[in-house]
Amino acid sequence: MIYLDNSATTKPDPSVLESFQQASQRFFANPSSIHHLGGEAEKMLSKARKQAAELLNVHQDEIVFTSGGTEGNNLAIKGTALKHQGRGKHIITTEIEHSSVDETFQGLSQLGFDVTYLPVDENGVVSVEDVRKAIRHDTILISVMHVNNELGSIQPVKEIGDIAKKYPKLFFHVDNVQGFGKVPLELAESGIDFCTISGHKIHGLKGTGLLYVKKGATLFPLFHGGDQEHGLRSGTENLAGAVSLVKALRLTKERQEAGTQHMLELQQELYNKLSGMNGVEVNTPKEAAPHIINISVPGLKPEVIIHTLGEQDIYISTKSACSSKQTDESKILAACSKSSEVASSALRISLSYDTAAEEISVFLNALEKAIHQLKAVLE
Amino acid sequence: MIYLDNSATTKPDPSVLESFQQASQRFFANPSSIHHLGGEAEKMLSKARKQAAELLNVHQDEIVFTSGGTEGNNLAIKGTALKHQGRGKHIITTEIEHSSVDETFQGLSQLGFDVTYLPVDENGVVSVEDVRKAIRHDTILISVMHVNNELGSIQPVKEIGDIAKKYPKLFFHVDNVQGFGKVPLELAESGIDFCTISGHKIHGLKGTGLLYVKKGATLFPLFHGGDQEHGLRSGTENLAGAVSLVKALRLTKERQEAGTQHMLELQQELYNKLSGMNGVEVNTPKEAAPHIINISVPGLKPEVIIHTLGEQDIYISTKSACSSKQTDESKILAACSKSSEVASSALRISLSYDTAAEEISVFLNALEKAIHQLKAVLE
Ligand SMILES: Cc1ncc(COP(=O)(O)O)c(C=O)c1O
Ligand SMILES: Cc1ncc(COP(=O)(O)O)c(C=O)c1O
Repeated sequence: MIYLDNSATTKPDPSVLESFQQASQRFFANPSSIHHLGGEAEKMLSKARKQAAELLNVHQDEIVFTSGGTEGNNLAIKGTALKHQGRGKHIITTEIEHSSVDETFQGLSQLGFDVTYLPVDENGVVSVEDVRKAIRHDTILISVMHVNNELGSIQPVKEIGDIAKKYPKLFFHVDNVQGFGKVPLELAESGIDFCTISGHKIHGLKGTGLLYVKKGATLFPLFHGGDQEHGLRSGTENLAGAVSLVKALRLTKERQEAGTQHMLELQQELYNKLSGMNGVEVNTPKEAAPHIINISVPGLKPEVIIHTLGEQDIYISTKSACSSKQTDESKILAACSKSSEVASSALRISLSYDTAAEEISVFLNALEKAIHQLKAVLE
Repeated sequence: MIYLDNSATTKPDPSVLESFQQASQRFFANPSSIHHLGGEAEKMLSKARKQAAELLNVHQDEIVFTSGGTEGNNLAIKGTALKHQGRGKHIITTEIEHSSVDETFQGLSQLGFDVTYLPVDENGVVSVEDVRKAIRHDTILISVMHVNNELGSIQPVKEIGDIAKKYPKLFFHVDNVQGFGKVPLELAESGIDFCTISGHKIHGLKGTGLLYVKKGATLFPLFHGGDQEHGLRSGTENLAGAVSLVKALRLTKERQEAGTQHMLELQQELYNKLSGMNGVEVNTPKEAAPHIINISVPGLKPEVIIHTLGEQDIYISTKSACSSKQTDESKILAACSKSSEVASSALRISLSYDTAAEEISVFLNALEKAIHQLKAVLE
């Protein structure tokens, strides 16, 4: 199997699954129970939280374990909006966010919030100047992703953080689901108040994730209850999930330098070959995250190419998994001013640290052949 | 180990964990991906949903997989409130709900909702007549738990459902986290619009659960995004979690009849022995769910008894795990008009289908001895 859909999800690392299994069995008690078994579970949870914090170079009180990226994004955004609406109802985001941010903003506009959607340039990058100009006296939140999930374009979140620092009443959220392990991002002193990470994009398990919540930042919880996770995310803790997530974070951090270098080389190879391939247009800009390359094959339906490759046990995708069943045209590519033809014929190839050079060449050959054959049928 | 804290959480069944492991490995793809691997994952998810629906005797479109009971309760309650607030802002609940309901109502009152908290009688049961009388023209939601987590008292949710049926614009939510597998409850034709179940209370995994959402009922999602789970709970699906939950539901259903009969016998034994034990008052009413027995030992701190038993590898709890770290006095027992002394010296013994009669007698002896010794020290 040649799996090149790692931006949709990754194969869980066997050691991550093993740590989930072990923690589920050995620390099954409720960390809130005051007996010895509960105490042991609570200690284990604290340890996981501390380790996560160390890996992210933040404080352990700043880690909120969640069920995934969508929860993290919704918690940061709705939590800020509902908590701080008394101070203003203006919120800012971009036109290229993942649906878990985009739809959340749309949901908030139904509740009376005023949303500014910032455009992006042809490389899929938002302008820092546009962000600055969009801020009003009643703005309470800016949410900008770090790495775009369709294109791989990198947003200037560091620079936006510098602006956000100057507005102490404004919160800044970064969706780092695609960036973690691929493009370095320091959280401490960054001006970032909330940062979302998802387990299953880094060989962790589905149903796991975390939200970084900067000390002092307050949120209206999505889950009220027993005040777990510093009161920001109640519910009996998924301890085994947290332990497994920490394992995935650690493995990622350990492999990040070599892994991104490796992916960059594969991406370069893909870039060169795909740019020269008949009928193919490369959409991903030159400066991008190392794991994504987005192309269009105008005139051919992406599903047909995916199906043809699938028969050879090669897996790539159209745009983002979370929107792939909706309309044909990619909103993201349209936002980058691509033609409707390009925006509706996009394919995404996404790598992991484990992708082999050999797999890339098999894929490139298979793709070239598929395009050739499918075009021949159409002529 | 004698584990009698099954209302806080249960030990995951090895076959449940095994099914999680297998599904994580074999169906790791994103069910939203349009390639073959995604299709296989989606089929598996549909199968799990269909099986869950069959086990609950409802329609597969009525199953929303969640991360647990707290999420289910919050989704049903906040989702209804935020979605239907245009029709009215009055919401009704009881004084003995779990914190994941209670705090959610308190959160909503911060957002301008008007909450009626209904009292309970000395057996910890709400009056159907009180519910009926509390309904106003602007009431949009009633939330009443099925089985109370501290006392085991059973609420008249069937009768309340019959009332709710007469108000087509009123939604009725039942927290069935403690009831499922212990006290039968039919959802179809019940007048219940939302019903919460949690995996880890029935030997499933933490981080899993489901919310029954009756066809036609609409909610403001807590998680916006890729429109997974019928658009009510976006986010890449925790397929392995869903598969493991279905396994736990099935095992529970299969064992329910014999298991509840078995627990009833143990509970009867506990009831008889504890009622006669020096210094002990039984708080759980005669008619209660079979798995919980709540007692008070006035004059002794519950933590001390728990600690003493813990040293003998016997685990019981104070009130509910999710509130055990807050104040000393049980809100639930206070609501049942128990004296402050009784309400602040409560212990909960909670059983599972697997609890052995032998364990109960060892526990009873150990408790009697502990009380005797601790009282002697105090004299
Ligand atoms: C950029 C981005 N944000 C958020 C998400 C949502 O994360 P999750 O799938 O863990 O809910 C995804 C992936 O689906 C993503 O690519
Ligand atoms: C009655 C009741 N409702 C809700 C919950 C919350 O469920 P979970 O622990 O799965 O979040 C619990 C247990 O903690 C409970 O006993």
